[in-house]
Order: sequence, then structure tokens, then C-alpha cells
Amino acid sequence: MAIGYKGLEILHPVAGVRLGVAKAGIRYADRHDLVLVELAADALSAGVFTRNAFCAAPVQVARAHLEQIPPRYWLINAGNANAGTGEQGLRDARLSCREVARLGGCIEQAVLPFSTGVIGENLPMDALLGALPRCFDTLDEQAWALAAEGIMTTDTVAKGCSRQVELHGRTVTVTGIAKGSGMIRPDMATLLAFIATDAALAPGLLEHCLQRAVDQSFNRITVDGDTSTNDACMLVATGGAGGRVMERADEPAFGVLQEAVDEVCRELAQAIVRDGEGATKFITIEVGGGLNTLECERVAYTIAHSPLVKTAFFAADPNWGRILAAVGRAGVPGLQVDHVDIFLGPLCIVRQGERASDYDEAAAQAVMAHDEITVRVELGRGESRVQVWTCDLSYDYVRINAEYRS
Amino acid sequence: MAIGYKGLEILHPVAGVRLGVAKAGIRYADRHDLVLVELAADALSAGVFTRNAFCAAPVQVARAHLEQIPPRYWLINAGNANAGTGEQGLRDARLSCREVARLGGCIEQAVLPFSTGVIGENLPMDALLGALPRCFDTLDEQAWALAAEGIMTTDTVAKGCSRQVELHGRTVTVTGIAKGSGMIRPDMATLLAFIATDAALAPGLLEHCLQRAVDQSFNRITVDGDTSTNDACMLVATGGAGGRVMERADEPAFGVLQEAVDEVCRELAQAIVRDGEGATKFITIEVGGGLNTLECERVAYTIAHSPLVKTAFFAADPNWGRILAAVGRAGVPGLQVDHVDIFLGPLCIVRQGERASDYDEAAAQAVMAHDEITVRVELGRGESRVQVWTCDLSYDYVRINAEYRS
Repeated sequence: MAIGYKGLEILHPVAGVRLGVAKAGIRYADRHDLVLVELAADALSAGVFTRNAFCAAPVQVARAHLEQIPPRYWLINAGNANAGTGEQGLRDARLSCREVARLGGCIEQAVLPFSTGVIGENLPMDALLGALPRCFDTLDEQAWALAAEGIMTTDTVAKGCSRQVELHGRTVTVTGIAKGSGMIRPDMATLLAFIATDAALAPGLLEHCLQRAVDQSFNRITVDGDTSTNDACMLVATGGAGGRVMERADEPAFGVLQEAVDEVCRELAQAIVRDGEGATKFITIEVGGGLNTLECERVAYTIAHSPLVKTAFFAADPNWGRILAAVGRAGVPGLQVDHVDIFLGPLCIVRQGERASDYDEAAAQAVMAHDEITVRVELGRGESRVQVWTCDLSYDYVRINAEYRS
Repeated sequence: MAIGYKGLEILHPVAGVRLGVAKAGIRYADRHDLVLVELAADALSAGVFTRNAFCAAPVQVARAHLEQIPPRYWLINAGNANAGTGEQGLRDARLSCREVARLGGCIEQAVLPFSTGVIGENLPMDALLGALPRCFDTLDEQAWALAAEGIMTTDTVAKGCSRQVELHGRTVTVTGIAKGSGMIRPDMATLLAFIATDAALAPGLLEHCLQRAVDQSFNRITVDGDTSTNDACMLVATGGAGGRVMERADEPAFGVLQEAVDEVCRELAQAIVRDGEGATKFITIEVGGGLNTLECERVAYTIAHSPLVKTAFFAADPNWGRILAAVGRAGVPGLQVDHVDIFLGPLCIVRQGERASDYDEAAAQAVMAHDEITVRVELGRGESRVQVWTCDLSYDYVRINAEYRS
């Protein structure tokens, strides 16, 4: 069960977006594993994709289609990533799009494919294509929760988030779903997140909105440091709430919307970490006092990826020497270690580069006993600050990844 | 038990080097945990140390002393790293040196301290100083194996290697010992290796010899990606074998010696991986066809550090998609994935960026069942090639690091 995750909240429908699901049997028996998202004809989409050089066939096709015309359909399958599948994989991804286009009455380029699951096996096209009509039959504005379940792989909980804000006297909704649990270290967006709003935004502003939200959410989480071949995050604005199109980033109404999108992305990203493979602790790592964001990120991720730090969290052992060693090897040029402070929750455990004189092991252990823990590092050399979210490394991480596929 | 490790071989004495051991009770009861190495007055030493910004007090003192005069003594304790201990740590390290100097009749700067063990606790100085006379009493040319045991912490086997070569008609010996099992991702030299030869080398050549050997051995291994605060590797040349001093790197005799030192370092480095915390597989990762060494290293370490790859090895699962994903996220600029081949042992599993058409899962599983496995990646863009050595990620890695300290 995901750490501190309160279950799927109510996911408000977004005018102009309908979702359909089917049991295609791509890998899992008797569960929804194919999701179709239908977008209104005048909806605008923006997307960010993995930077992994071996990006999957659907990522290549989705990126190419998105550059051509606004999408009408997103097709998402779970259980097979269609990655490392070469030309056959590209043919399969395009064929899926063509079939959705035929059934939905649009052109092939208006369909974006997304896949998640095992790498290196060809998509079972008969199963996938055979289930498409069922996806169309079930299209419904209310089906966000079903869709959140339909895109799961090693996830143990469905992940969704929904916010409503008032803009120009109208209620505007932002609703999103995501999946992901392992191979999580997004370099752009994490494995499959789909967010919709019925606000109306100009194209450039939509991309700006998505990029900002992703940079502060999906690009700030890590489970195991492994950037996936299939990461993608989509944001669609349908304009279905009515009201005029937002054009500029400095409009107050856009600020309100951006905050709602930020919050939905952050909640979804954190939900992925809370459901990290084998996770027993949800850990916030905050690094401040850096000269720039880059060096703060470097320190935060060095801590977040350290197997020694992660196993210490699993053991609830305040082994601060491991945190200190990680800070020291993060490659911050000219770091003065006697300016570095480290906090565990409210406790200062390292002051000016050495164990705090009032360090109290029992108090530190009490902090480590919590499910949610914040580590704060102050580098003492500037004003930059970042937060990243991660989880611990447990027996179950090894079990899940040793057993997966077998 | 370490993978494929044949136990401690015969460690030939090196003229001009004597070793003494004592049970100081620094952390472990009733075992040798304090080692003193005495070097002949005319011996020359070279050393390389961790680049971790939080380098431990003994590293700071050893580096400073080494710059001043040729050392007469190396003092090594196990069980306490004397790292993250600030001014008190420096005072303790210097006091250890002063006491060795008093007992040994030299100046303080001729003593180099080395510590390994838990980070962040002060050295128990009474125990350490009280055991020093015993170290002096037991000094013996034959005590290399005892010393190899005395420097162990989470190691499960003592690590040593010895080679003899003929130079100018004389037998020259190279003998080394090392310790290390976790927090292994050297950025210079790994946690404590001590190598001695009775050859005679000019100082610059000695440093050259050590640096080259370390770059191809200790700087090519990783267990968990965590660079220690205490890494140090020392090489001493006593000249005790007689014969003239080697001055130039292009002397044939130096080439023979370099090869012996390389081999001792490589064996010791590999022994550390074989004894990696929780390791069940010894994995060689070879990356060729790169434009330069840097990008080959980047790919090799991205694979070697991937928890998903490491757990797949633990499970003996030929999950090549994880290797491919790691290659793709390694950040090689302009990598053309359709030029990439990946081999598992003798099998080509990925050809031109996708699953090899003759891929045979049963054959791949047969390779994965071995204790020692080579993964070879061909980037297909240049002539550079590197090898690194690593191990898998098992339940026992988590257990060892969750339980250590508790």
C-alpha cells in the first residue's frame, strides 16, 4: 500500500474529455489494460516525453503526430512498453493509431499512442485492435477513475488528482491521472501522466504551463534513478468551461490555473513515489543555500539515489554519515564542508560539517520512525533551493524487480 | 563468501616492509583491528585519496604528511572511519601519529593515519593508543595476511595479492592488501589498499605507476555507487631487492614492473567486487566503440549502477530491456541507437538497437545462471573501450546495510 496515500479522490470530469476502457488481455487477464481518451475537436494538447535515447516506438510516433495536428485521441495500453522493438514496434504503434482513426473518424496523425510495461516484446496487435471497439463503446466523461486503474502496471494503487478553481466567474477543472512505480527517474516527465483542463489556453501558454508544472513535480522525483524509455506527460486544454482564451503568462487568471496544474502534477508525482516499488518511507529531500539550481539538484539526487542512504531509511536508522558522504561526493565545485548543515525533520544533525554538538540519537531515531521524513541540507553558499521526493530501498524493491517478468 | 574468490594467496614479503597487528577493541571484540606498517628509511611512498569533499580526518592528515616527507609508518584502524568528526577528528588523527612517532623514533609527519568503519563517531583514543606497543612488538615481514585480516570491516574475506617478476636478473616482489565491500565507487582509489614493492623507483615514476594502476583497477569498480569519505591507496617502493633506481617510464624493466603492479591492483579491486555487500554475481561490463573513454565510462557506470539491472542479475533474468534503457539514459550526445549492439556473454541480444532476430531466451538464461557474467555494449561510433566491474543487488545488500550500525 502506498505511503500516506489516501486513495483515489473524486476526479471531476473535464468538459470536452471522455474516457473509455477495455480488457484487451495484453498481459494481464481480466482487468482493464487499454484506455482511450477522446478530446474535443477544438482542444489543444501539449506533451513532454522521455529523453532516453532508446525512446519507445509509441513515444516516437506520439511526438511526431503531436507536431502535426492537435490530437483527438490518446490510446494507452498497459503491460507492454513496445520499446526496443525496432521497425516492427513503429509499425504496430502506427497501426494502432490508424485503427483508432478509422473507428473515430479522424486522421491517423490525430491519434497519439502510449505504452507501458515490459520492454522488448512486440505488442499483441490482435488483442489490442480487437478491444478498441469496446473502448469507443464505453467513452464517458465520468470514467477518469476507471482509466487511472487501466494504465497501472506494478502500481499498487491508482493515481489521480483533481482541482477546481474560479476563473472569470466560471468554475475551471484540472484533472489528471498517472501511473508509475519503478524505473522512475524522469528526465522530462514520468511514465505516463494525463492531465486535462476545461480552461482555454493559447498553444504557447499551454506548453509553458505544462513545462513549469512538470519541472516542479515529475522532474523532481526518483524511485531508483532509472529513466524509462516510455515516459510521457500530456496536458490538454479543452476550453469546455467557456470563457476567453488565456494568452499571457502574466494574467492573474493564468496564475491561478498554473497553481492548480502545479498542484495536480505535484500530487500525482508524489503519489508515484508513495507507491514506489517496495517503498516503506516517503522522503522529501530539500537542498538550499546553493549557488544555483543545478548544484542543489545534484546534491539532492546524489542523496536520493544513494543505496546506503535508502537502506538506512528502510532500517529507520539515523545514519547521517551516509547523507554526509553523499553530499560530499555530489561534485559541487569548491564546496566548503564547514559551511554545511544537515537537518533530519526538525533536528539539526550536522552543523558546520560535523555532528551537531547537541545531536541526540534517540530524537533522531524518533524522526526516522515516521512514514514521511524530510532531510534538509543547507550548503551555505547561495540562495538556490530545490525539493525532490524519493523513497527508501527495501527487500521488497529487490523482490519486485527480481520477480518481475518471471 | 566472495564470488569466485579463491581465498588469500601466498603473500610474499617485501624487503623493507614489516607489519604489526593488535586487538585494540575499537569496535570489534577479540579480533585484530589495528595494523602498523613500517617502511624502510629510504623507501618512497605514493598515495591517492578520495575526492569526496567530506574527506575524513585521517585522509586530510595523511595527505598533508605525505607532501612533507617520505613516510616511515602507516597506521590503519578498522571499525571507525574518523569521518564527519571535525576538529576533534583531526586532533585524534594527529595524536595517533605523534604516539607512533614517539614509539618508532621518527617525526610525526613521517606517520600516515588511515581509518575505516562507521562515520561520525570519535575514535576511541585510549583503546587505540593502548594497543600501539603491541603493534610494534609484532612487526614482522611475514605478517601481510594478518594485516589483510586486520583492516576488514563488512568484508567477508581478507584480500591480498602478490606477484614476483624478474628485473635485471633480480626477483622483485609486488604485494598488496585491500579492504572494502560497501560504499564502493572509488573516485580515486577505493577504501584502503596498501601495496609494496622492493623495486627502486624515482618519485615521479612511482606516482605515475600508482596512478596508472589505480585508474585501471580501483577506479573501475562499483558496488553501490557510493564514494567513500575514506578511500586511500598507497604504494611504497623500498628498493630492498637491490638493483638500480628506475627513472623512466619507457624502460623495459619498468614496463614489467608496471604490469605486475597493474595486476595486483586489478586482482585486489576485483576481490572487493567479488566480496561486494550481498553480491551473488561478479559482472564485467565492457563498453566499446565509443568516441572517447568518458562516454564509454558513462555508459558502463549507468548500467553498473542501475538497480533494475542489478536486481535482474540477482534474479538471473536476461531482462535486456533494462540494459538497453540504461544505455539510452547514459547521456551520450547524439547516440544513434540503431548502431548499438549488446552482448550477454557470447550471445548477441540486441543488434542495431533492437532485439537480435536470433535471440534465444533459453540461451540467455543459461548465461545468466553463471556466477561470473560479462555484458558488452558496442556503441558503434569510435574506438574507445573500457571495462568496469560490479556485482548484483540482492536481499542481502539491503539486509547488511539496514542492519549495519544497529
